[in-house]
Amino acid sequence: MWGAYPFFIECIIMNLKKTITDLNRDTTEEFRAKKKFPIAVVLDNIRSLNNIGSIFRSSDAFCVDRIALCGITATPPSVEIHKTALGAENSVNWTYYPTTAEALEALRADGFTLCAIEQCAGSISLEKFTVAPDRRYAIVLGHEVYGVDQTIVDTCDYCIEIPQFGTKHSLNVAVTAGILLWHFALAQIANH
Amino acid sequence: MWGAYPFFIECIIMNLKKTITDLNRDTTEEFRAKKKFPIAVVLDNIRSLNNIGSIFRSSDAFCVDRIALCGITATPPSVEIHKTALGAENSVNWTYYPTTAEALEALRADGFTLCAIEQCAGSISLEKFTVAPDRRYAIVLGHEVYGVDQTIVDTCDYCIEIPQFGTKHSLNVAVTAGILLWHFALAQIANH
Repeated sequence: MWGAYPFFIECIIMNLKKTITDLNRDTTEEFRAKKKFPIAVVLDNIRSLNNIGSIFRSSDAFCVDRIALCGITATPPSVEIHKTALGAENSVNWTYYPTTAEALEALRADGFTLCAIEQCAGSISLEKFTVAPDRRYAIVLGHEVYGVDQTIVDTCDYCIEIPQFGTKHSLNVAVTAGILLWHFALAQIANH
Repeated sequence: MWGAYPFFIECIIMNLKKTITDLNRDTTEEFRAKKKFPIAVVLDNIRSLNNIGSIFRSSDAFCVDRIALCGITATPPSVEIHKTALGAENSVNWTYYPTTAEALEALRADGFTLCAIEQCAGSISLEKFTVAPDRRYAIVLGHEVYGVDQTIVDTCDYCIEIPQFGTKHSLNVAVTAGILLWHFALAQIANH
């Protein structure tokens, strides 16, 4: 198609921002019905409703199978979650568990490999963690201040850490979720 | 060292969460003095102070060379930016430009390759964008609703898009920044 236009016109067309129609995203019904990436997100006592909503939005974008909301983690419907989820709280499948241990038990029974995202003595640096495309993974994210509880880290199969090179001790949990989801989704995108 | 302990003790030690002392992060002075990754972040009229602060925090973690705050993008000092930057607004080098065009001109003069992060007709999907470790890149992020301005996209050398598989049209801009910084930092981490 592009060959039909002079080069400078091609450049203009190629640079044009997509409209909402061009993006052609799923409706909530289409999304709920379609096959998901084999990725679960576990929120181990996340305090901030903004972070929870943002993680819903990223989970929608990366076609997450389910979110487990655990302990003090708030659940939809919530005006505050909606502000950052922008409706993704209605598309992504979620379950509430009183404790994170119960969520992990259910996920393990469903064949998920459990990955705590924490900075531990022996944690694997994210770039070294190879994702098997046919394996199911649960990404466990922890409290904004205290991180993933030590007993939960001990229960997981892997502990993965995002390497950091600055002054701060950690990344925001919603940013962490985005980077992890991208890393795990990459294995699926290759086959999409 | 690990060989000195029985296996189950090794497992316990390996799983132990690092303390703040274990993390051994840079002080603000150490960070300001050290060699950065050849990555700049350009904020093209970002509205939310929370997002600006969060992008400072991620830029600190991924050792960003500089941030250009453009147009309506607020600048430190700001109580609201501090809430999510947590002090990273004092470690990461930043400059304010009245217009994004001026920021891009300065960055291009300094040898940066300009990458608009937008969903365009001909944008490159992030996983296909190979980062040259010895090249300097500026990542241009746009307004929460309107994205990167079309004239700014036209000025850039590349337009890069994060592929998405859900119902929402975009990711949060601070999450987008985190994913992009991770992608560009990876080329540096390999040589770190």
